Amino acid sequence: MVRASKGVKMVEEVKGKDAEDMAKEHREIAVSEFFEKNRHLLGYDNPTRALLTIVKEMVDNSLDACEEARILPRIWVEVKPVGSDKYRVMCKDNGPGIVDKQIPKVMGKLLVGSKFYKLMQSRGQQGLGIKGAVLYTQLTSGKPTTFVSSIGNGKTSFYELMIDVKTNEPKIISHQYIEDGKEWHGLKVEMEFEGRYVESKSGVTEFIKQVAIANPYAEIIFDGPNGRMEFKRVATELPPPPKEIKPHPYGVELGIFRRMIQSTTSRTVKSFLMNEFSRVGGNSAEEICKLAGVDPGVSPKSVDLDTTEKLFKAMRNVKLLRPPTDCLSPLGENLILSGLKKEIKAEFYSAVTRPPAVYRGNPFQVEVGIAYGGELPQEGQVEIIRLSNRVPLMYQAGDCAITKAVASTDWKKYGFNQSGKSIPTGPGVIMVHLVSTWVPFTSESKQAIASYPVIIKEIKLALQEAGRGMQRYVSGKRKFEFFQQRRKIFDRYIPEVAESLSKLTKEDPELIKFKLQKMAKEITEVKSFDAESEGNNIEETV
Amino acid sequence: MVRASKGVKMVEEVKGKDAEDMAKEHREIAVSEFFEKNRHLLGYDNPTRALLTIVKEMVDNSLDACEEARILPRIWVEVKPVGSDKYRVMCKDNGPGIVDKQIPKVMGKLLVGSKFYKLMQSRGQQGLGIKGAVLYTQLTSGKPTTFVSSIGNGKTSFYELMIDVKTNEPKIISHQYIEDGKEWHGLKVEMEFEGRYVESKSGVTEFIKQVAIANPYAEIIFDGPNGRMEFKRVATELPPPPKEIKPHPYGVELGIFRRMIQSTTSRTVKSFLMNEFSRVGGNSAEEICKLAGVDPGVSPKSVDLDTTEKLFKAMRNVKLLRPPTDCLSPLGENLILSGLKKEIKAEFYSAVTRPPAVYRGNPFQVEVGIAYGGELPQEGQVEIIRLSNRVPLMYQAGDCAITKAVASTDWKKYGFNQSGKSIPTGPGVIMVHLVSTWVPFTSESKQAIASYPVIIKEIKLALQEAGRGMQRYVSGKRKFEFFQQRRKIFDRYIPEVAESLSKLTKEDPELIKFKLQKMAKEITEVKSFDAESEGNNIEETV
Repeated sequence: MVRASKGVKMVEEVKGKDAEDMAKEHREIAVSEFFEKNRHLLGYDNPTRALLTIVKEMVDNSLDACEEARILPRIWVEVKPVGSDKYRVMCKDNGPGIVDKQIPKVMGKLLVGSKFYKLMQSRGQQGLGIKGAVLYTQLTSGKPTTFVSSIGNGKTSFYELMIDVKTNEPKIISHQYIEDGKEWHGLKVEMEFEGRYVESKSGVTEFIKQVAIANPYAEIIFDGPNGRMEFKRVATELPPPPKEIKPHPYGVELGIFRRMIQSTTSRTVKSFLMNEFSRVGGNSAEEICKLAGVDPGVSPKSVDLDTTEKLFKAMRNVKLLRPPTDCLSPLGENLILSGLKKEIKAEFYSAVTRPPAVYRGNPFQVEVGIAYGGELPQEGQVEIIRLSNRVPLMYQAGDCAITKAVASTDWKKYGFNQSGKSIPTGPGVIMVHLVSTWVPFTSESKQAIASYPVIIKEIKLALQEAGRGMQRYVSGKRKFEFFQQRRKIFDRYIPEVAESLSKLTKEDPELIKFKLQKMAKEITEVKSFDAESEGNNIEETV
Repeated sequence: MVRASKGVKMVEEVKGKDAEDMAKEHREIAVSEFFEKNRHLLGYDNPTRALLTIVKEMVDNSLDACEEARILPRIWVEVKPVGSDKYRVMCKDNGPGIVDKQIPKVMGKLLVGSKFYKLMQSRGQQGLGIKGAVLYTQLTSGKPTTFVSSIGNGKTSFYELMIDVKTNEPKIISHQYIEDGKEWHGLKVEMEFEGRYVESKSGVTEFIKQVAIANPYAEIIFDGPNGRMEFKRVATELPPPPKEIKPHPYGVELGIFRRMIQSTTSRTVKSFLMNEFSRVGGNSAEEICKLAGVDPGVSPKSVDLDTTEKLFKAMRNVKLLRPPTDCLSPLGENLILSGLKKEIKAEFYSAVTRPPAVYRGNPFQVEVGIAYGGELPQEGQVEIIRLSNRVPLMYQAGDCAITKAVASTDWKKYGFNQSGKSIPTGPGVIMVHLVSTWVPFTSESKQAIASYPVIIKEIKLALQEAGRGMQRYVSGKRKFEFFQQRRKIFDRYIPEVAESLSKLTKEDPELIKFKLQKMAKEITEVKSFDAESEGNNIEETV
């Protein structure tokens, strides 16, 4: 056996490794080890962001669970310092709870989830979120995470869980199951970890506030280091539940199509196409088979690789309806307005929900809300609230399609100031919400939406529509202010002019003054400014 | 058993799920499924980027293998279109090859690697790269990847491999092992996938060019759709090999420390501390034990959780040397200069290698090269070449610490134009190279370096140092041009002035002209501009 470096010019006395040496060094890496070392990918770059990420994962989980069970969410979040650099975070909800024996697997193993395989709008999608928090907790405090759960059957589960990082398996530190007869159902999670609490634009308070705006049907109590805040619900109806859909033929890749056809239980190729894809009816299925030169009646098991590829190509070349979009559950203009009005003291609000669109076979939909004026600061950049499937995005704004769309919209014509293609300035809040069965995030920490051109385009259209509403209001307001200003100038000079005219004409100065005032009023009169009538989409919500 | 939604106001007729329903839906997700669905995380956002990512993964692998074996790399990359939307990419190297029976595991299973556990500077670090490419290949073309390998023992392995996405296990489509007696050793990888070839700043040609700059000791042949390019080596020595180091106590987290103490083979706590950490000698180990109130002679097995935490805290509070930095292998100023000169036709080059620094216990080092003037375009932004452990970073520039450091450096004083804190403009190329035992990338696709303040600071210091070299050159050049300009003006008027003076004085006009020219030359003379003497770091490399 020749060493690999033989015959090649050895450049120095350092001995290189050969293939046999290298072979010994290859090891499997558990996904838990991978994310422990790469924890910044899950949002644990630093203690400040870690605290936000943990609160976010807990709240996301609770809201998803409540909504799936069609329960109006009531969530209690507590953040308290423990010593100098540690925090304890607790989140308790009124959701459906988790079945006792499932808790270790669902909470103590990365890449276990119920949403990964579904094409359905939800906050979670990867089976990483809360487990990443468990991992970070044990990494920085060495402590397990506590789970208390009841599914409403009068029994309560207690678990202390860690993750065995080397194997990605749950490690049960303690477990009790108590028949206490209590009526509560839901989940309570408690973690202690290295964190830092900072009140900032990407801090926990701001996050909770934005959650309240994006989920106005949720009641949230936030007990933070700087006091307690209650966010009452302003809507008593959950938005319609999102529906699960089947993949659309245009959005499926060859490798996945092959796996589907190999593992299907359908008896014929035709029924396989009809059963497992959206928008493929009997006619379309037959057309696909014809184009591919495949008998629609044969068993999918009998289809070889070449034929699979023919079917795949045919599927992309047959004209099909776009994917169904009733699977999406946007907030709707009324909920956006009530959410914004609840938390932001402005003088004008506008909301737009665009019709659904499609990227790479995935339906998505954009909504925009704008709040303007009132108590909002006159100076500085407009605040941008980025939401995705009702979750506020707090980091990586610069990398997000929403920020890019806002910056590349021309705001000067709608009433904000703006220099070039930058974030506009002025007294405003711009909220953008994207919902999709599969949001294309730029990283596992799910803080920025990838800049697909069609997504940017839809966001810009929504911004422009909401902007036009704002423009009508702002220009109405400016006209009103202009006329008020003019009247003031008249008013200021009328007494003097009247006095002089009286001296010239010997008329009663008071009469002249009265007539002049009447004239001035007629000239400068505009209907006193009616904010409500100038804005659009101002109907109150229930 | 009470359904979870009982007792809670049901908001509509839609039936919610209860905990039992949800329990049934939880499934394990193989890491291969995860990355198949989230392929954009590995750099497969779109066909153009996918092509670049695949070339990059292949070249990274080849260079890492050659360097580990201390072989001067010779790499042949071929990119050819196959039909309308598919490309075939081949990469062949003269590396050590891979042991036959290891190939399926090393190339057909995600999260298998030799570098994840090592603190050592290398291109690969996660055990994802080339396997991600295999995954993308089968997803988009349905085809296996071909591997041909020889470790120099006269036998050649052929494999066609896929990844079983549901289990993350290699799937061997075909395998042959032939005794052909050939002398070649190395690896040849071939993939066919959905791609798009675009010549652009983040395209394959530019990538290969930058690889050649960053690895001037490598010979690269690139046979692309637009022709063949050869990048000859300009250095015949590999940089010194990077060394593996042990973790530094300041950079280790509690959870990892606990795992280390639980699994150590050291017999005493003292020897555990000394053996498994860098910069902990006998005295430091005893100091740590004393501070934690632990007997240095006890077995690590006997240490309970509380004591582990005490040791951990003590370890962070004992004064220790910073981690060793001789583990890093920067290019060095000479290799930077020869790399730049080889590929960039400028008139001035400058290079700086900073001393090593440390972030979160990880040593890192920054190098900068600047090329100025010559054939570089006068208009537009300066080209920025971002390198990390000798790998060019082609995407996500806006998110990268290097871009931020360049934009926040004041270039006007060094000779580029710049408006505010933006990328400077002018005829220049700025190359920044960061080496580290663990580069903090912002995502698995490893295209942007996270913005740790200490990293930004080091990059800026290096930029400033190289900038000062450039400033000396540019100001010398400008002075020269200024005097040349002045002389030209004199020269232009001298004949006329001489003529007039001649008429007045009756002197010979030619004599007056000669005298005036002599005078002008004396006044405006500067030593003719010597580019080499004005620049710094211009010594030729071997």
